[in-house]
Amino acid sequence: MSLSADNDATRRAGAILTVDLANIAANWRGLRDAGRADGKPIDCAAVVKADAYGTGAAIVGPRLAAEGCRQFFVAQIEEGIALRRVLPEHPIHVLNGLLPGTEADFVEFGITPVLNHLGQLNAWRAAAQRFNRPLDAVIHIDTGMHRLGFSPEEAQVLSNERGRLRGLRLALIMSHLVASEEQANPINGEQLARFRSFVRTMPGAPASLANSSGIFLGPDYHFDLLRPGASLYGINPLPGQPNPMLPTVTLHARILQVRRIDALQTVGYGAAWRSARPSRVATIALGYADGYFRTLINRTHVHLAGHKVPVIGRISMDLVTIDVTDVPEAESQPGAPVEILGPHLTTDDLADHARTNAYEVMTALGRRYARVYLDAGVDTGPAA
Amino acid sequence: MSLSADNDATRRAGAILTVDLANIAANWRGLRDAGRADGKPIDCAAVVKADAYGTGAAIVGPRLAAEGCRQFFVAQIEEGIALRRVLPEHPIHVLNGLLPGTEADFVEFGITPVLNHLGQLNAWRAAAQRFNRPLDAVIHIDTGMHRLGFSPEEAQVLSNERGRLRGLRLALIMSHLVASEEQANPINGEQLARFRSFVRTMPGAPASLANSSGIFLGPDYHFDLLRPGASLYGINPLPGQPNPMLPTVTLHARILQVRRIDALQTVGYGAAWRSARPSRVATIALGYADGYFRTLINRTHVHLAGHKVPVIGRISMDLVTIDVTDVPEAESQPGAPVEILGPHLTTDDLADHARTNAYEVMTALGRRYARVYLDAGVDTGPAA
Repeated sequence: MSLSADNDATRRAGAILTVDLANIAANWRGLRDAGRADGKPIDCAAVVKADAYGTGAAIVGPRLAAEGCRQFFVAQIEEGIALRRVLPEHPIHVLNGLLPGTEADFVEFGITPVLNHLGQLNAWRAAAQRFNRPLDAVIHIDTGMHRLGFSPEEAQVLSNERGRLRGLRLALIMSHLVASEEQANPINGEQLARFRSFVRTMPGAPASLANSSGIFLGPDYHFDLLRPGASLYGINPLPGQPNPMLPTVTLHARILQVRRIDALQTVGYGAAWRSARPSRVATIALGYADGYFRTLINRTHVHLAGHKVPVIGRISMDLVTIDVTDVPEAESQPGAPVEILGPHLTTDDLADHARTNAYEVMTALGRRYARVYLDAGVDTGPAA
Repeated sequence: MSLSADNDATRRAGAILTVDLANIAANWRGLRDAGRADGKPIDCAAVVKADAYGTGAAIVGPRLAAEGCRQFFVAQIEEGIALRRVLPEHPIHVLNGLLPGTEADFVEFGITPVLNHLGQLNAWRAAAQRFNRPLDAVIHIDTGMHRLGFSPEEAQVLSNERGRLRGLRLALIMSHLVASEEQANPINGEQLARFRSFVRTMPGAPASLANSSGIFLGPDYHFDLLRPGASLYGINPLPGQPNPMLPTVTLHARILQVRRIDALQTVGYGAAWRSARPSRVATIALGYADGYFRTLINRTHVHLAGHKVPVIGRISMDLVTIDVTDVPEAESQPGAPVEILGPHLTTDDLADHARTNAYEVMTALGRRYARVYLDAGVDTGPAA
């Protein structure tokens, strides 16, 4: 690959993150079609919280809307307000719910809070009264996560007293699966049963249970709306099985310098790596300040001109050192792009090396990376 | 503490990072004065790379300039360009050096590359010729890091052939210490000796060796310019000893919801925590997408109204669960601010819990946090 140099930020960047919008769109279509294969008019939302898992919500959101996506989920109201600027009409739901004192913000920007307990429901009803208009509401029922959502007791209250929703339009009932990536885990079926019995008490309200992995638990879990996040961005929803999703990000960092060192010399902070032979060490332009975690020490590799190249020494804040002794000099010169994430090493692979998950790798993707967006292989230019 | 609600972003925020500019300034003055105690006119720069270690370079840079700081270091040219917008006159040096093809950018924005090898020196001299003006240069000599900087052989070439600097103004000679936080490590003295012997070959050029911990190695290491980074932001430059720096950041996240659960119920993804007794679990508004690392699972705590409260279950992308069973209900209601970092738990403490260093904790501080800046205890308002 050659790094595109058609704009200032890309030319100057030490590292470039390329986001494939066409693949994100294809992932969304594939999940939507998996839902429609049931023969029911199942819709598919997009979870674009945490800046669309590091890929850029302001770009990814409108692209998925153009693809036909009609509903969007974020975690925080501030993310919803930012998304509202580029998606003036689409429903936007805030998963973290309604913080005390923010009701007027939700109304002003036309954003829907996911109501997670009776206190939030009451506050939102009061807002509907105050603003003298019906307001959309999403009700989140906890079926086992014990994190956010109506407790079983509160859900029972709501089932028995539908009048508590007066003044609101019930846009969606939802719940969240605890371990959907473990297909044989009995907790999935238990959560499904609890969710179904609540849904039955709310006839006519659309319902949603399936996150990315939940979609693959089968039609019983699909209800009216799928809610994929991670899988849109290429993270494998089926750990241990082949990944059905297309990859969406590649990351390249440039070589800043190449140094020859003798045998038994050390590299980096704390002299943490020692050469076994006369070596060539390249320093590349990314570090843990860019989300390339310090836990990767002595545990991962990169790719350069077809060669698998070990990362050596400590990860620095802004720099990483690699052993290019076995790479021809002509292919390891300053400026050369080194593949950090891409065809040879996926986000799932890097997460494994860092002893975390691909979600954390993606949401940590650095703000200093120049971001280039591709659509059907065409460079659509950098982010605004 | 009560979270200030005097602007929209702060009112709506799930979590708020407070940066104490007065303490950053006091840390800078303290380090500068440590240098001046030698009786020589030693200057003190500020390293503000990685967005001033997560605190906000666009705010911190001008604040330190107002305090008297005259030189600034960043890692990447793009960081230098951003800083140039708020510091139109001060020297700004880019540690990662001169990437091929970026010479005109450095000239356009009046930013100095730290030249890390002869190839970069030659390219910068060619730029001086092309633009027909003398250009400032910083020369970085590698004295043992084997990461960036002139190799011993290249340094020898430069010492022997001063004409290679023709057309440039030698603004600074510098090197970087490998293990300055280990005061007894013999590598410090070895690097000092190598640096001294190079400096002697460049009479008249200002020299700089000491990073934060290096300043505490004593006057021999001070030369003409101190280059603190981490210690400005309160990170302890003397691991294992009392921290001589003032803290500069506090972080609070709000309670979104409190749930009662029975004994032997589980919380969170993968059902990773199980209650030993009937419990009250609060969910707070931050997660690993905000740099609250997944490695913190079962290893840290937060503080709420004077109580030390354990973090339980997996860290989620946008949420953390805490066990507030022993906190009075009146003090653990939705909206209440929970101390994540502050007087009770420093960045060094949290880094220890996450098995990393405070540098990574700070550079990972989330972009979703509302940022509030204090100066001498006065709220100077949020970032623009």
